[in-house]
Amino acid sequence: MTDDIGAFVPGPRVRIEGRVGGTLAGLTFAAKDLFDVAGVPTGGGNHDWPIGRPVPARHSWAVQTLLDGGATLIGKTVTDEVSLGILGENAFDGTPRNTKAPGRVPGGSSSGSAAAVAAGLCDTALGTDTGGSVRVPASFCGLYGIRPTHGRIDTTGMLPQAPTSDTTGWFARDAGTFAKVSAVMLGEDIPRALPTSLVIAVDAFGFADPGVAKALHPMVTKLAALIGHSREDIMAPQGLSVWARAQRSLQPIEAWNTFKPWLDERNPRFAFSVARQLLLGSMVPPAEQSWAALMRQEVRGRMAHLLPAGTILCLPTTPFPAPLVGQPLSVLDPLRDRITCLCAQGGLAGHPQVSLPGSTVDGLPIGLSIIGPRGSDATLVAVARALEGQAS
Amino acid sequence: MTDDIGAFVPGPRVRIEGRVGGTLAGLTFAAKDLFDVAGVPTGGGNHDWPIGRPVPARHSWAVQTLLDGGATLIGKTVTDEVSLGILGENAFDGTPRNTKAPGRVPGGSSSGSAAAVAAGLCDTALGTDTGGSVRVPASFCGLYGIRPTHGRIDTTGMLPQAPTSDTTGWFARDAGTFAKVSAVMLGEDIPRALPTSLVIAVDAFGFADPGVAKALHPMVTKLAALIGHSREDIMAPQGLSVWARAQRSLQPIEAWNTFKPWLDERNPRFAFSVARQLLLGSMVPPAEQSWAALMRQEVRGRMAHLLPAGTILCLPTTPFPAPLVGQPLSVLDPLRDRITCLCAQGGLAGHPQVSLPGSTVDGLPIGLSIIGPRGSDATLVAVARALEGQAS
Repeated sequence: MTDDIGAFVPGPRVRIEGRVGGTLAGLTFAAKDLFDVAGVPTGGGNHDWPIGRPVPARHSWAVQTLLDGGATLIGKTVTDEVSLGILGENAFDGTPRNTKAPGRVPGGSSSGSAAAVAAGLCDTALGTDTGGSVRVPASFCGLYGIRPTHGRIDTTGMLPQAPTSDTTGWFARDAGTFAKVSAVMLGEDIPRALPTSLVIAVDAFGFADPGVAKALHPMVTKLAALIGHSREDIMAPQGLSVWARAQRSLQPIEAWNTFKPWLDERNPRFAFSVARQLLLGSMVPPAEQSWAALMRQEVRGRMAHLLPAGTILCLPTTPFPAPLVGQPLSVLDPLRDRITCLCAQGGLAGHPQVSLPGSTVDGLPIGLSIIGPRGSDATLVAVARALEGQAS
Repeated sequence: MTDDIGAFVPGPRVRIEGRVGGTLAGLTFAAKDLFDVAGVPTGGGNHDWPIGRPVPARHSWAVQTLLDGGATLIGKTVTDEVSLGILGENAFDGTPRNTKAPGRVPGGSSSGSAAAVAAGLCDTALGTDTGGSVRVPASFCGLYGIRPTHGRIDTTGMLPQAPTSDTTGWFARDAGTFAKVSAVMLGEDIPRALPTSLVIAVDAFGFADPGVAKALHPMVTKLAALIGHSREDIMAPQGLSVWARAQRSLQPIEAWNTFKPWLDERNPRFAFSVARQLLLGSMVPPAEQSWAALMRQEVRGRMAHLLPAGTILCLPTTPFPAPLVGQPLSVLDPLRDRITCLCAQGGLAGHPQVSLPGSTVDGLPIGLSIIGPRGSDATLVAVARALEGQAS
């Protein structure tokens, strides 16, 4: 199988056969280059990351789980540097091609995983999501993608960034594959029962480009019909931008603490934007940090209130489809900030979220997200499966 | 001629013969990779710098002047990234070996030029000095090095950093070669007449490591004898650290303005410390900038007052000899700041300064600097020649 879309990390392609007879037998998967694969250096999307580090002796929990499930690993995929990035442009390994939106970024930081699945190079792929790194590429590449409940999936052998927000996620092109992989990763059957109440996050729909809300409208209508009961509400009474501000303070502080010893010891190379993000994490004033921690508590309270058992919430995964590749930072920076306004609740509150494909704006994919109560991951996958079944 | 010390930029070595019959005939020189050489991409010490830029069609003024003078160009040398660095450790091209202080940094940013001359790979080499980038490697590698009067040497074809401080300088191992090259670069004969008064900057000697002041004492004594009249005075009544603070505000602001369009357009890769330096330049508060500009005026007034015609001032070029290579940023950052305390007057006031070799601390080279009135460059070279003549 050739890979002319730059989804896999440069160099020899790793391949490890899955366990014979597993439920995922016959499926192939790729792993974002943040996940340890025994005998293969973990690249982390930055050529200075592996220097001086031991080659992993064992697989990460996620890779081992998919191999045990029967899926075959066919490669490691390009990621934004040490998962710091939301667009998928990597100065070291290049920008994986988004075959569903030619000339557009794949989204990041799980860029290569999403691009590989979208291009049909594998059936599923592992990603990580701290501030949107599975959800955004799922939206931009027209895929199913899940950010599980924070703390639910074992992150052993996964390169950390901001541990109170880090999660392991995965992608698939179709809901059937998505459900099969999810059952293995979650260690739980996908239920038949669906939620009974849908909240439509009107602030998030209002924040997205007008074309996005319009493009998602048919799917929201179908979702409402599937669930039975729906109502409109505001997700973030304090403001989506206020939630984003809290996330943009807390996450970089943690990332700074994660990477500071490496920066000090190795003075590694980064794209300017990545170094900037890290450095800004070292400069958050204590008062801002204290406030952001309090706002995080408010967000958790709000999300728990909005999402009692049996309820899900929907919103656009991203406020616009994939931007063009190769744009200047002065264009991209405001786009990043807008994306964070729709993604911040994931890192702040830790609820599970699934991005659903099927909608387009001017031919470009755009995802509809559903969020459920903490621990309701399998139910969100059930909704994805039921909705696709209804659509076909 | 082999180069196993990493002084030259990787890749094919450029060679251009000097004009037959010039006063520099028989001499070889190297050019820091900030100077344009026709037909050769200017690397700038950063692998993303040349991308998308036209290959220079003509030589920089400095390269053309040495070629016209009869010297033969034998290569381009490693530099700290876009001249941002004072130690000479480059994450892209490596750290040129300091053959005069094994295991120690060569100093930067004109690291390869100094290392090449120190190792005898060429007779002279072009560098640039904005905040110390010729003076520091001259001190660390035991070479003659000059930072000319600001604005005196044509900087056409030289990659700029902070134009109100940028200068073109050069290195040599012996005073005779240094004088010959200086006469060509300055377009002025080196005079026989020497200054008649020497000021010993007691604050600068007091700021250096005790071993440095002690090591330089014999040379200061010889210099005082050569000049005839000497006295002690404070160079920086406001404080060396106050002068350094002004320089550390003004230079990064200018560097930010120089490189900002490139950063925005290309999001280039940098060692973390370089990206940090650039970003901090964008964050200097306006009140700090205004103050620094006023302090620069004070420094200019002080240096003009200290250095009437016929007077020179001496101080240690650096507060210590070359640090070990490969140290963490937390060790190097305070060293950088201390170096700036002894170098700030150059960028702030623009007076010419020559670093003189010949002293060592524990076997490691340390330079003694002489500074003269603006325009007295040739006289400083004359002092260097006379002092070496006296010593031999």
